[in-house]
Amino acid sequence: MPEKTSVNASLEAPCNWDGWLDRYRSVRGLTEHLCTPLEVDDYQLQSMAECSPPKWHLAHTTWFFETFVLADHAKTRTPYHPAFALLFNSYYEALGERWPRPRRGLLSRPTVAEIYTYRHAVDEQMAGLLEHASERLLEVVVPLLDLGLHHEQQHQELLLTDLKHAFGLNPLRPSYRLPPGRAGEGGRAARPGTAPLRWTERPAGVRWLGHDGNAFAFDNELPRHRVFVEGHQLASRLTTAGEYRQFIDDGGYRRADLWLSDGWAARQAEGWEAPHYWHRDGGDWAVMTLDGLRPLDPIEPVCHVSYYEADAYARWAAARLPAEAEWEVEAVNRGIAGNFLENWALHPAADGGSGQFFGDVWEWTASPYAAYPGYRPAAGALGEYNAKFMCNQMVLRGGSCVTPQSHIRASYRNFFPPSARWQFSGIRLARDLAA
Amino acid sequence: MPEKTSVNASLEAPCNWDGWLDRYRSVRGLTEHLCTPLEVDDYQLQSMAECSPPKWHLAHTTWFFETFVLADHAKTRTPYHPAFALLFNSYYEALGERWPRPRRGLLSRPTVAEIYTYRHAVDEQMAGLLEHASERLLEVVVPLLDLGLHHEQQHQELLLTDLKHAFGLNPLRPSYRLPPGRAGEGGRAARPGTAPLRWTERPAGVRWLGHDGNAFAFDNELPRHRVFVEGHQLASRLTTAGEYRQFIDDGGYRRADLWLSDGWAARQAEGWEAPHYWHRDGGDWAVMTLDGLRPLDPIEPVCHVSYYEADAYARWAAARLPAEAEWEVEAVNRGIAGNFLENWALHPAADGGSGQFFGDVWEWTASPYAAYPGYRPAAGALGEYNAKFMCNQMVLRGGSCVTPQSHIRASYRNFFPPSARWQFSGIRLARDLAA
Amino acid sequence: MPEKTSVNASLEAPCNWDGWLDRYRSVRGLTEHLCTPLEVDDYQLQSMAECSPPKWHLAHTTWFFETFVLADHAKTRTPYHPAFALLFNSYYEALGERWPRPRRGLLSRPTVAEIYTYRHAVDEQMAGLLEHASERLLEVVVPLLDLGLHHEQQHQELLLTDLKHAFGLNPLRPSYRLPPGRAGEGGRAARPGTAPLRWTERPAGVRWLGHDGNAFAFDNELPRHRVFVEGHQLASRLTTAGEYRQFIDDGGYRRADLWLSDGWAARQAEGWEAPHYWHRDGGDWAVMTLDGLRPLDPIEPVCHVSYYEADAYARWAAARLPAEAEWEVEAVNRGIAGNFLENWALHPAADGGSGQFFGDVWEWTASPYAAYPGYRPAAGALGEYNAKFMCNQMVLRGGSCVTPQSHIRASYRNFFPPSARWQFSGIRLARDLAA
Amino acid sequence: MPEKTSVNASLEAPCNWDGWLDRYRSVRGLTEHLCTPLEVDDYQLQSMAECSPPKWHLAHTTWFFETFVLADHAKTRTPYHPAFALLFNSYYEALGERWPRPRRGLLSRPTVAEIYTYRHAVDEQMAGLLEHASERLLEVVVPLLDLGLHHEQQHQELLLTDLKHAFGLNPLRPSYRLPPGRAGEGGRAARPGTAPLRWTERPAGVRWLGHDGNAFAFDNELPRHRVFVEGHQLASRLTTAGEYRQFIDDGGYRRADLWLSDGWAARQAEGWEAPHYWHRDGGDWAVMTLDGLRPLDPIEPVCHVSYYEADAYARWAAARLPAEAEWEVEAVNRGIAGNFLENWALHPAADGGSGQFFGDVWEWTASPYAAYPGYRPAAGALGEYNAKFMCNQMVLRGGSCVTPQSHIRASYRNFFPPSARWQFSGIRLARDLAA
Repeated sequence: MPEKTSVNASLEAPCNWDGWLDRYRSVRGLTEHLCTPLEVDDYQLQSMAECSPPKWHLAHTTWFFETFVLADHAKTRTPYHPAFALLFNSYYEALGERWPRPRRGLLSRPTVAEIYTYRHAVDEQMAGLLEHASERLLEVVVPLLDLGLHHEQQHQELLLTDLKHAFGLNPLRPSYRLPPGRAGEGGRAARPGTAPLRWTERPAGVRWLGHDGNAFAFDNELPRHRVFVEGHQLASRLTTAGEYRQFIDDGGYRRADLWLSDGWAARQAEGWEAPHYWHRDGGDWAVMTLDGLRPLDPIEPVCHVSYYEADAYARWAAARLPAEAEWEVEAVNRGIAGNFLENWALHPAADGGSGQFFGDVWEWTASPYAAYPGYRPAAGALGEYNAKFMCNQMVLRGGSCVTPQSHIRASYRNFFPPSARWQFSGIRLARDLAA
Repeated sequence: MPEKTSVNASLEAPCNWDGWLDRYRSVRGLTEHLCTPLEVDDYQLQSMAECSPPKWHLAHTTWFFETFVLADHAKTRTPYHPAFALLFNSYYEALGERWPRPRRGLLSRPTVAEIYTYRHAVDEQMAGLLEHASERLLEVVVPLLDLGLHHEQQHQELLLTDLKHAFGLNPLRPSYRLPPGRAGEGGRAARPGTAPLRWTERPAGVRWLGHDGNAFAFDNELPRHRVFVEGHQLASRLTTAGEYRQFIDDGGYRRADLWLSDGWAARQAEGWEAPHYWHRDGGDWAVMTLDGLRPLDPIEPVCHVSYYEADAYARWAAARLPAEAEWEVEAVNRGIAGNFLENWALHPAADGGSGQFFGDVWEWTASPYAAYPGYRPAAGALGEYNAKFMCNQMVLRGGSCVTPQSHIRASYRNFFPPSARWQFSGIRLARDLAA
Repeated sequence: MPEKTSVNASLEAPCNWDGWLDRYRSVRGLTEHLCTPLEVDDYQLQSMAECSPPKWHLAHTTWFFETFVLADHAKTRTPYHPAFALLFNSYYEALGERWPRPRRGLLSRPTVAEIYTYRHAVDEQMAGLLEHASERLLEVVVPLLDLGLHHEQQHQELLLTDLKHAFGLNPLRPSYRLPPGRAGEGGRAARPGTAPLRWTERPAGVRWLGHDGNAFAFDNELPRHRVFVEGHQLASRLTTAGEYRQFIDDGGYRRADLWLSDGWAARQAEGWEAPHYWHRDGGDWAVMTLDGLRPLDPIEPVCHVSYYEADAYARWAAARLPAEAEWEVEAVNRGIAGNFLENWALHPAADGGSGQFFGDVWEWTASPYAAYPGYRPAAGALGEYNAKFMCNQMVLRGGSCVTPQSHIRASYRNFFPPSARWQFSGIRLARDLAA
Repeated sequence: MPEKTSVNASLEAPCNWDGWLDRYRSVRGLTEHLCTPLEVDDYQLQSMAECSPPKWHLAHTTWFFETFVLADHAKTRTPYHPAFALLFNSYYEALGERWPRPRRGLLSRPTVAEIYTYRHAVDEQMAGLLEHASERLLEVVVPLLDLGLHHEQQHQELLLTDLKHAFGLNPLRPSYRLPPGRAGEGGRAARPGTAPLRWTERPAGVRWLGHDGNAFAFDNELPRHRVFVEGHQLASRLTTAGEYRQFIDDGGYRRADLWLSDGWAARQAEGWEAPHYWHRDGGDWAVMTLDGLRPLDPIEPVCHVSYYEADAYARWAAARLPAEAEWEVEAVNRGIAGNFLENWALHPAADGGSGQFFGDVWEWTASPYAAYPGYRPAAGALGEYNAKFMCNQMVLRGGSCVTPQSHIRASYRNFFPPSARWQFSGIRLARDLAA
């Protein structure tokens, strides 16, 4: 069980970046800290095949360190439990059989308590390894550790995303109660009005795309390479809920001409009438948040739309979604500041005109997720991390209010199928230059 | 939460039948007692649409008393919680909208603890009602109370049946751990060998069918009426696992000629090769029980077969399944003794030749579940209890090792679709007289 | 191709019952005659898995004679075509692999012309066999021939039923054009008004059920046996479309309390609002018939209802459907007269009060299709004809306006799943005697 | 009906390109000529939702001219038949309701004969329009006419592709019999051996992509724009069946590590073991062609593989699929020569080392189908032609042996979902330059 009283110090103060063990403890601690508002009952929830139960996230991230770090480098290499490789492997075909994803919610055993024991046992082994590792061993282990921590950060986000989906369908509308004294999903106290949407114009030319430097990046952000970007305009801020509502009021969900063919089919099959979590409330709208149901705020960014909806909205607005190159070239000039997981401000708040590119909501791009020219996946099972999903998905950029701030960067490529709506996904518009 | 230390006295000693309140407490207490081996994690499990989570069983049976007894007869008629009618109504169309059955496992809230609080609040109200009710009020209330208790007993059985299904698919093969000192699903210490199968011959003639007398019975056991029963033979004991294994070894699951058309289609679609819970173990078989996995015992009754398998087995054995009239006419002469829920001997043990008709396993009959001539369903919502299921189901008779003994009688009609295998369902053969 | 000019004489005059060959030619000829209004395009239609294309009916009935008569008794036993056993076996598991039923409409080859050639080749072989058979051979062959002809008569009915289903969904509303000079589905010229519904009362007692005598019957009509029938009342005539419309107007399709649970689920899933082929036409109703669309006639029997609808209607009418024993006991006293296939009056016309029991529409009974006590299926592959369907289906009695008259009798048991609506199926009510 | 005796002269001699009416007649005539081997029975075949019956292709292409040319520009604007807009609109949402695509095979009416009559009536109206049109009207009409003819050419290809799919599942293995004296799918008489695979190296740089000039092109080939293409190598010829067989023999269909995640899921769900139309024939392979079944020829291009298979093959071969820009830049330097529909050589024959880029098989590229920068769909309903499919599909290039030669060009972008296998789709490899 998470120790509800000992909030991890690293949340209060900046991490001690001198030591990897400190960073390990900080990230791992945050995951458990995120679980403090949960009842044991909540840990089992899997509300659709794409989501995983909180306890599965806790166990899978632990299995990741056990498998990719401890198994090859710790003194004792006996697996913690003979069945955990089966139960907690997510999708690595190279590592053998897996428990079917849609049935993750059916495993009441191991219990939540047993999974916390598992976490702590692996944490102890990791601490032992890191404390006593030679310089030479660290050279091998630290890149894997680093990957494992970024992996755990991804699951911190997913844990909240998936929990929101499960709570969102419960008619009791449960609330993910944050510790007192912290701002919640309710928005920030002081918010300026919506800034007018401005268009930033960029000329055509050859640009560099992809991760630069030696800091951590996933393999799919590489290699750095040139692309020709046509002249275009980029919106200065995200599309707001109020703007999106005009699209709805104008019959956006009834006009097939605004939609991609697959998008229209999805809209018909699923009965979409508004973003996920929007509920009609008389003539108005309420939104389900991690804090429970509250009235829609027209100046917050629209969130929980699929690519299909983002694309239809853009067409309605006589614009389009940006290509990922357009987005990234702009983003490298901006500082990473905004509304992230650590702020505990889980509801996307309105951009007050700062032109902020990171945080709040993931931004759908018009770019299908594909390999960069010259792409080489990592060797072995870790090569499955990103490479095998390069089909039928779209790239999203910028991170969201449930993304850890230290996890994001300008070259970061997130990807989801165009029908996905349970992520914190929103819209930034772009436009071609007039011919 | 169940009080793990105070085992309900009524389990030790016979119920005090003088008072309905005692009986109420005894039955309600047994339900909670059955939950003592559960972890909080287990209460949420719903492994298929036909099963319900333990916590749902706990809440639904409580809602039943609240709705059908308290709502009309208690002093305060305010519902305990405004959403519970939505969440815990099983299938009563007359009582409004219901939470979709396949999604019962997605409700982490109300928590297990909250559901126990709900139970105890309703128990208190029920006690208040019964203690202070006038003779005249009792005349109205007691039949509803009696129905509610039989209803709860049905859910006691389902709770274990559904839990077994969920545990049965967990690769950790969890065990439903019984309190120490009690025999479990492991079988009884002393067991004689399988008695030879004898055939009891009965001549043709008009017989009476249906419930007789004033004791409790469901509406579907009425009215008592005459049927003409042709001369026939009935097997003296249940089909054993060893006999059924011969059917398997003889290619019973490969020979379409032995199966009903729908049965063969189900066998193909589901890939059935043996009863549910049988696992190949080298050249032998193991069975999953509530106590975990153990070797197959050839002299125990075969269990967890569908009607289709029971029917195919009977055809292979040059016999047939009994009509429900054949079964009932025989059963009225037998005493109700055997292997029931209260014995805590949850695994069907072999019938040592006693000719026992009750307990161990439900016996599939060849009779489709239909109304008796002159049948009248109860008035109002309770009329939905049995009547609306009279199609596409087959009658089972006799109760099983997870049926409470006080719940069963000769005229009792259980019913399930012919493809159902998660119930404790087995086989008794019958034969026509030679022409 | 059917010879459009040479209408089979047997349709004009009674068959010559002296000779089996005449009867063979008469039945086979009628099948082809029924195809005269078809375009080649129509022969391929399969509008749902339960239906078969006309060309498949033509070929399958031919394969039946080839397989069950010629293969064992003709001089040359080489199959006509090596692939036809695969393509035209309907459901006989004992006879090897079969082309999947839902894909029967995907076989453009063999062509319609080739299938007619196949028919005529088998007809010639059959004629050769019958003309030259010894008395002793005839003793063996004639029962198989008789079965084959009754089989072909069943497919004559299915051919029209399936064609109606396919035409019924075509927005062009094609008409099955009958030869000039014959009455069509349009109803008969002179029709009296609807007779008042009377109730025939029958006392309780033991009755005989099942086929009597030596004439042809299917194995499922045997053995003749006793049943105890409770006292009851039977409606003097079929339920009319006008009466059924009152049920609709009274919200019959909106009131769950009137329906079986499975029936209500089917109604919801399929969106039923009226019988199949009823179309709203302003404030009125039109019905699609084999003659095309025409206004609903309130005094014709209601037709194309599922068992679920028949059952719900009966509950609404404070009555019930008859048991098959109640129906048969009454029917043996009636002559077989009415509205049959040979009359070419394909639309069920109103019974003008004659109390007619045969023809017009099949009557749903409340009896699940099950084996009679002592039932023995035929040996070999022919044992699959009826036996393996004795589950999840309901019995219908009496024949319909597309049943050949010489095919029907009082003991005849038709059976379909309770959700089936494309058959010409209607309603006769029954009632219990007041207690 | 097609006039089987009057083969369209334009097939013998080059089209008269002077007049649009001649071109119209030539293209329309070829469509009908392609139907000469069909029986009436074949015209109705729809073997999966993605395919359409031949008669639907005949009608839909006619409806296209009626809707987009005649409706606005002919003298009489009454639709030929009031229901044909419903029945023969393919996917234009702007033009109202459509008959569901998966049910196109259920329309036996209008008959084949009626559809030919429809074709010829529209042809006559088109001739009337073109013969009497003013210069000014022609300026408006000819672009629509041109589009309609390219549209019809696409359906010529689909007609054969779909027919092959339907014939391919018929156990009789029908053959699309070509007129005598013409080479068929059996391959060409003289074929050199497989040329060794060479790699053409191209340096990095900015290149122009998209249609150039004033000749016809679809809107998705525009606008012409710059892209940065990294240095790479392109295979000189297509992958052969013999090479692909090595992939199979090396366990290519068993090794998850070679496949995209969605590809592996498709392979598992569909049970793929080889390209569509390959059948094991003892230790060897046979392939189903439009000419029927024949032994696999190892030097013909591999055909009827999905994108997933092409991608897995490339990974196995330590290569990748080309980006569409890599392909197009190379293709503009080549002449359009090869194996096309007009050659009547419907089976892809081996490229004898000529480095041919067009015909034989469509080549899967690694490029998801997306809009070019600055893309503007056509106005009105015709904007749906290409634009709304720009998601979840991959680009194919180069045309195939069933593509009309005059229909193809270097900038042509075909697109299909990555799971599609019924098109004539094959593989050309590419490689990155060594770093």
